[in-house]
Amino acid sequence: MSTYHPLTEQEAIQIAKELDGFFSPNSTLTSKEIGDGNLNLVFHIKDEQANKSIILKQALPYAKVVGESWPLSLDRARIESEKLILEGKYAPGLVPIVYKYDQDLALTVMEDLSDHIIMRKGLIDGHTYPLFAEHISTFLAQTLFYTSDLGMNQQEKKRLVKSFINPDLCKITEDLIFDDPYTLSSNNNYESAIEDAAKALREDELLHLEVAILREKFLTKAQGLLHGDLHTGSIFVTENSTKVIDPEFAYYGPIGFDIGAVFANLLLNYCSVDHWITEDKRDEFKAYLLNTIKTTWTLFNEKFTALWAKDGIDRLANSTPAYKSHYMLSLLQDAVGFTGAKMIRRIVGLAHVSDIDTISDDALRHKAQRKAITIGTTLIKQNRSISLIEELIDIVLSN
Amino acid sequence: MSTYHPLTEQEAIQIAKELDGFFSPNSTLTSKEIGDGNLNLVFHIKDEQANKSIILKQALPYAKVVGESWPLSLDRARIESEKLILEGKYAPGLVPIVYKYDQDLALTVMEDLSDHIIMRKGLIDGHTYPLFAEHISTFLAQTLFYTSDLGMNQQEKKRLVKSFINPDLCKITEDLIFDDPYTLSSNNNYESAIEDAAKALREDELLHLEVAILREKFLTKAQGLLHGDLHTGSIFVTENSTKVIDPEFAYYGPIGFDIGAVFANLLLNYCSVDHWITEDKRDEFKAYLLNTIKTTWTLFNEKFTALWAKDGIDRLANSTPAYKSHYMLSLLQDAVGFTGAKMIRRIVGLAHVSDIDTISDDALRHKAQRKAITIGTTLIKQNRSISLIEELIDIVLSN
Repeated sequence: MSTYHPLTEQEAIQIAKELDGFFSPNSTLTSKEIGDGNLNLVFHIKDEQANKSIILKQALPYAKVVGESWPLSLDRARIESEKLILEGKYAPGLVPIVYKYDQDLALTVMEDLSDHIIMRKGLIDGHTYPLFAEHISTFLAQTLFYTSDLGMNQQEKKRLVKSFINPDLCKITEDLIFDDPYTLSSNNNYESAIEDAAKALREDELLHLEVAILREKFLTKAQGLLHGDLHTGSIFVTENSTKVIDPEFAYYGPIGFDIGAVFANLLLNYCSVDHWITEDKRDEFKAYLLNTIKTTWTLFNEKFTALWAKDGIDRLANSTPAYKSHYMLSLLQDAVGFTGAKMIRRIVGLAHVSDIDTISDDALRHKAQRKAITIGTTLIKQNRSISLIEELIDIVLSN
Repeated sequence: MSTYHPLTEQEAIQIAKELDGFFSPNSTLTSKEIGDGNLNLVFHIKDEQANKSIILKQALPYAKVVGESWPLSLDRARIESEKLILEGKYAPGLVPIVYKYDQDLALTVMEDLSDHIIMRKGLIDGHTYPLFAEHISTFLAQTLFYTSDLGMNQQEKKRLVKSFINPDLCKITEDLIFDDPYTLSSNNNYESAIEDAAKALREDELLHLEVAILREKFLTKAQGLLHGDLHTGSIFVTENSTKVIDPEFAYYGPIGFDIGAVFANLLLNYCSVDHWITEDKRDEFKAYLLNTIKTTWTLFNEKFTALWAKDGIDRLANSTPAYKSHYMLSLLQDAVGFTGAKMIRRIVGLAHVSDIDTISDDALRHKAQRKAITIGTTLIKQNRSISLIEELIDIVLSN
């Protein structure tokens, strides 16, 4: 079974049975393929009697996007598995546990999180997650500080850069986030009702300058080992728990990119709130979302600088207070810029978010889309002059 | 002979003889080891009768620096060989031809350039090289543009980043250029007569901020495939020819680092001119050096932007004029900052330059050292606000 082929449910059960000491030898296991079939097979293997379960995730050698097939390296399964293990080391409890990785089958066996729900769905259903800012700020600070030149031996970091070179998956981001939305591209995907707003994105040279600078950072700035796709669909939550999943886009990039992914997806939800939550709860929910962004930044800033003070390994950086301020400010500015870029791609680009796409009323949906574009554009244009997280909040509130 | 061991002169001759079609089978070859023995063995193999010769360069598994032994990966021989071949592709005629690379022996067989002299020595002897700016600007523009995300397929570039991860050699630069000169370090090496100037380097927090920012760029900014050690001791010249050698420090870094290496070494020579050239020629020689810097930048800027216009592969970057200006300005600013850092390390750091160290008069030598520190410090502190190459020249002339 070691040559690569897409697994059947029976094969998945067999692999689960052979897993050392997880299921008892005589247990009866059921298998259900629960993936969306676009990029991966995901088998949910369960022992009903013992109430134990596990996930097998197998990479497929292609991505099915809008009917087309896009070849993708199976190496992304190695990257995902190795990144999950590193995240588990630096941020224990905030990612699924990895039990096994089989390189030949591009298969990762990991903790079942089916008692959690996808955060995007939770937010759309009007749930709030009061511990999320605390959890995600820990995840960001721990995984990004300890893989940066500030917190990791700089020679060891270079070997990690090498191991996480991820050309295929990075290209998806380079095209879909940092190129297509700003030109006529067959990858774009938006309704003709917002053509004027989409056209404005293509014709705004000041915007293009800032997007090109952000694109350059994505292409060249090997600052920390990113998750690379940290939207609210890659986060499982309960009231008390946060688990970050699916780091197959992991690579060494600008730290602000991961932070911006979280902010952007909270803001995309924000843009949709007026249209699905009952009127009496809207203001409260919007305040919750903005407060989550502000608290996430504040706690991230505190935790990252605390780690730096405790475990910083770079003598010059450690002993130069002005550099610490400069560094944290540049993380905020990058995060603001990437927030904007990630909002815009979800409106006019290939892949959308259900927060907005499921608004059934056309006019309200278009209004939400325009709002996301306006906020995104403003954040991108102003990112290099931002100095406080409150300025991001102000931009949201005034648009 | 395929297991690694340092070659004898007889073994070097044998390898040269076996080289396909270079020497005739019955030729009598002589071998002379001409390396400095610190990092590499360098065999000069010659057929006196046919007047043909060749160089065998073999990496040693350590660096001897000030009596100590510093272990170094033999992988640097692969990096040097592969980088030389790439440079030969992008900048033909400006590097020695590589005939053979033997990975097991960490051995590169290459063109003999003994009709050239080391540029540093030529400058100290008062020679000028009127074609140097033309040549080196071509070398810089061609090797850096075509390995950047602007001129190379971005997925292919990532594979090249991976292949040129160079932890050992980068660490030398990180320590000796971007750390030691700004702290009490046993690696530092300067005369007590300039202790006050060295102390000032250690206590200037504004300087430390800028050095830390430059250090971060060196550690994280994978912009182009650098030579990595482009001082005038790594350049062979004649009146009509320029050959860049010794790219064992090659890695993906900030483009301005290579440019700054050239500028810094011309300026170190500039600081020494008063003390070894006859008085009537000093002004002319200094003007030549400054003009070479200015012309090198001007031509580099012209050539790099011309390549961008002709062969730019990044749609967004190509179609955003404001980004082109931003990009070229940031190259200049980085170059100015790295120029300063490279000047300072050659005065108070471990490795010096003979331009200044061979000034026999103590007072004059110290004066030259102080001048280099002053210019270097000013360039570092002002790098992020520079907008024209003339500002660099003005800083030199006013210090």
